[in-house]
Parts: sequence; C-alpha cells; structure tokens
Amino acid sequence: MANSFDRMNGVGAHEVIIENPDANWDMADASQEEMIAVLNAYTERMTALQNDPRFQYVLIFRNAGVAAGATLAHPHSQVIALPITPRQAQEKVVAAHEYFERKKRCVFADVIRQELAMGDRVVEDGEHFVVLSPFAARFPFELQIYPKRHNHDFSQITPEERAALAQVLTRSLRRIKKTLGDPAYNLMVHTAPVAGTLSGRHEQSVHAAEDFLWHIDILPRLTKLAGFEWGTGFYINPVSPEEATKFLKEQDVDN
Amino acid sequence: MANSFDRMNGVGAHEVIIENPDANWDMADASQEEMIAVLNAYTERMTALQNDPRFQYVLIFRNAGVAAGATLAHPHSQVIALPITPRQAQEKVVAAHEYFERKKRCVFADVIRQELAMGDRVVEDGEHFVVLSPFAARFPFELQIYPKRHNHDFSQITPEERAALAQVLTRSLRRIKKTLGDPAYNLMVHTAPVAGTLSGRHEQSVHAAEDFLWHIDILPRLTKLAGFEWGTGFYINPVSPEEATKFLKEQDVDN
Repeated sequence: MANSFDRMNGVGAHEVIIENPDANWDMADASQEEMIAVLNAYTERMTALQNDPRFQYVLIFRNAGVAAGATLAHPHSQVIALPITPRQAQEKVVAAHEYFERKKRCVFADVIRQELAMGDRVVEDGEHFVVLSPFAARFPFELQIYPKRHNHDFSQITPEERAALAQVLTRSLRRIKKTLGDPAYNLMVHTAPVAGTLSGRHEQSVHAAEDFLWHIDILPRLTKLAGFEWGTGFYINPVSPEEATKFLKEQDVDN
Repeated sequence: MANSFDRMNGVGAHEVIIENPDANWDMADASQEEMIAVLNAYTERMTALQNDPRFQYVLIFRNAGVAAGATLAHPHSQVIALPITPRQAQEKVVAAHEYFERKKRCVFADVIRQELAMGDRVVEDGEHFVVLSPFAARFPFELQIYPKRHNHDFSQITPEERAALAQVLTRSLRRIKKTLGDPAYNLMVHTAPVAGTLSGRHEQSVHAAEDFLWHIDILPRLTKLAGFEWGTGFYINPVSPEEATKFLKEQDVDN
C-alpha cells in the first residue's frame, strides 16, 4: 500500500526543554554545570528522536524574548522532529555534498580555514570550537559556532566537546548581551538529516557524513523583516560582520 | 573588460512614495480617487525603473505598522530596483515556466480555476480580480490578489483594471482591518523580472510572458518568526485559510 505520500504523514514531535528551575535564569549567565545539563538534554532528546523511524529531521532551537517569538516566560528550548527533511536543510546538505564531490573537501572546513586566515570575522577561536560573524550575515551581530572536529551530527558530540561548548555558548550569549543590552534572539542547532532519509542520489552523502558539519546559529532580533525581505529573500543588514566582530570580541566575558 | 561580476554591481534604486498628504490617512479607508493616485505612482515608477538598463527586478511594497517593519509614520509605499533578480523571484518564474512547458497552461490560471471551483478559499471574485486566501498560507489571514487577464507585468495594467484594483485593494485591507483590528501588514506587488534579464535557457520564458502572472500579496503580521521558521523554512499558521476566508468574507466592506 506504499505510495509517495507515505513519507509525509503529519506525524511529528514537539518537546519543550525546561532549562532551569529558576524562572529568572539567564543562559548568558549560566554556570558550567547548568549549561552541561542543558546540552545533555539536547543530545539525549535528539538521539531519542533520531532513532524513531517516523522522523527524518530533528531541530533544536531556543527563542529568547518576545521579539524572537518566545511565548513562555520560563527559560526553555524546543525540540521538533519532522517526518520530512525541510527543503532548506536538504539544499544545504546537497550543496555541501556537491562541493565535496568537486573539491574532495568539506565546504564548512574550507570556510573556517579561510575565515581563520583572514581573521576579521573571527569572534573566538578555541581548541574545540570557532565562533564566526558570518560573511553573509542576515542580521546584525549574527553568530555561528562551528566544531573543529568534523561531524555531521550534533548528538555525537564528545564529553570533552560538550564541556567546551558549554563555555563557548555561554560566552557567545554574554558577548551579545553585553554588546547589545539583552536583545531577543533565536538560537538553532543545525544537524544533518537522519542518515538514509534523503531520497535519491543524495542519500549516500548523508550516510557518508563527510560533507556536512553541524553548527549553531544565533540570530539577535534587532531588525524587523519587512516587504523587501518578503518580496526578495534578501536581507538588509546595517552592520558589517567585521564591525560586529570588533564589538563582540572586546567584551570581557570570562567573569 | 566584461566579467561575470559585471551584472551585480551594487547599483540600485530606492524610492519612497508618499501616498497622501494626510499623515493619518489609512489606505483601508481610501477614496477611489486617492487609491488611483497611488496605483498611478506605482505603475509610473515601475515603468521608469524597468526602462533603466541597469536594473533587472523592480519590487513595490508597503510596510504598515511597526511590527511590519515600518520606520516612517507617514503612510507610504516603497519601490526598490535591483541589478539582479532575487533567487526567490527567479525560482518562481522558472517553476511557472516549467509548468507551462509541461502543461501548456499558466500555473497561476490553473490555481485560480481550481480555487474558484472549490470556493472555500475565495474571499472575493470580481470581473477583473480574484482575492484568495492561499492554500499554503504562511501567515494567518494572508491574502493574494490575482488579475483575471493574463499579464506578467504589473505596470501593464489597463485603466479599467486600475479602477477595479483600487476598489479590490481597499476592500481587502478593510476586510483585514475589520476582522483583526488594524494589524501591521506587509504588502508586495510581485511582477516578472525585466524582460530579457534572466540568464540562460529561461530568458525566453520571461520574454514570452505567457507563464507568469503578476499578483499582490498581503501578509498580516500577527505571528512572529522564531527558531522553527528560521531552522526549517516552514511556517506555523494556526488559522486555516478556509477559516480565514469565512471571517474576511463576512465583513461589510462596501460602505
């Protein structure tokens, strides 16, 4: 009875992760222990949902502040599992795969290598993670966090990386808070679609896991989407990523 | 000295159309004469910019209300001319062209025919225009206005169509205002890229002008974009288009 509609069947999962018992807790000021607890919840729930054969794609995100769409006051993240891979995620994976086929190198690794060589969009460069102000940032002070070890799947992060990420993530949010005065933001964990779920010739690429690199996007919501953005898909960003990097880097975020 | 970067040269135009001398003027309550003056400005400026060989794409839009990104209080629309066709516009034109090649019919005409036959997403059906609550609406109470006469280029609207559009547009905005209590919204006029500017095998399709239909989108901004939308490109819309149609249709908008 299989037909082409079987794959999109309306089944999904939506989970809310309560990050801390304190309703006034701020992730930008979290302790290392608190952040590791949050990241543990992220990877545990992602793994559980990836193992459910009904799902193709798992997204973890965090909306902070009303302007970023937060509807619960208590600090929380959300996990969504979908029965299909969103076109946007599929395009990213396919583009990375095509780049790998052409160059025999991961496109994300090439971007990171070039950014580290240039330097003026590097907010932080550590042993396990690099934080970039992306070249084509859609929003002022947008940030991307990339792991240094290649892996397509966020849930496969090691304990050592998890400890490092806890620090990098808190520091990044603190940079934004100190620079911009606690703006609303969206945070998304981008991971590859569940292995073997992309259709056709690209399925192998996700299995192989060599061409996609998981990463985290943080989008401060200082500007509003308007007719120009809706009509074109282009974004007006009044702050250059190099300028944003300067402001974000100069914050003292270790205390 | 031509190279592949010649086409994207950073040149653009941005014009603001002051719609009315009265700062408290509301397009939803406009007189027929006032609306025709606005539409005249739309088509005159679009034609002028389309005739400038530096531009490939002209977008007219209107941001109403702070949540929709409006930064001037005085009622106004904006015209933007770009030296490239945004990917989003190009994909729409190319998809419409491929549909036409396969079916020998305009995809927009087929959608309109089907919607008129079904009826439950038709907000208004007149001699010159049809107003639909789109099947895959991204936002609650989103509206699309389509002309009944096939044309790819909004600026080629006839005087008779202009008079009809003035009424349809005011009525549509009044429906939204009466149903939702004057929400912020974005309005966009979608027209084909300037003839002959798309590259490669699709250039002819825009010349031929048979596969794209200009239209107007109205997006009330009641919901906020958050991590789910940014992470997937999917939109959560809590109001079905059929339900929205019922509410919008029942408003008395002729007085």
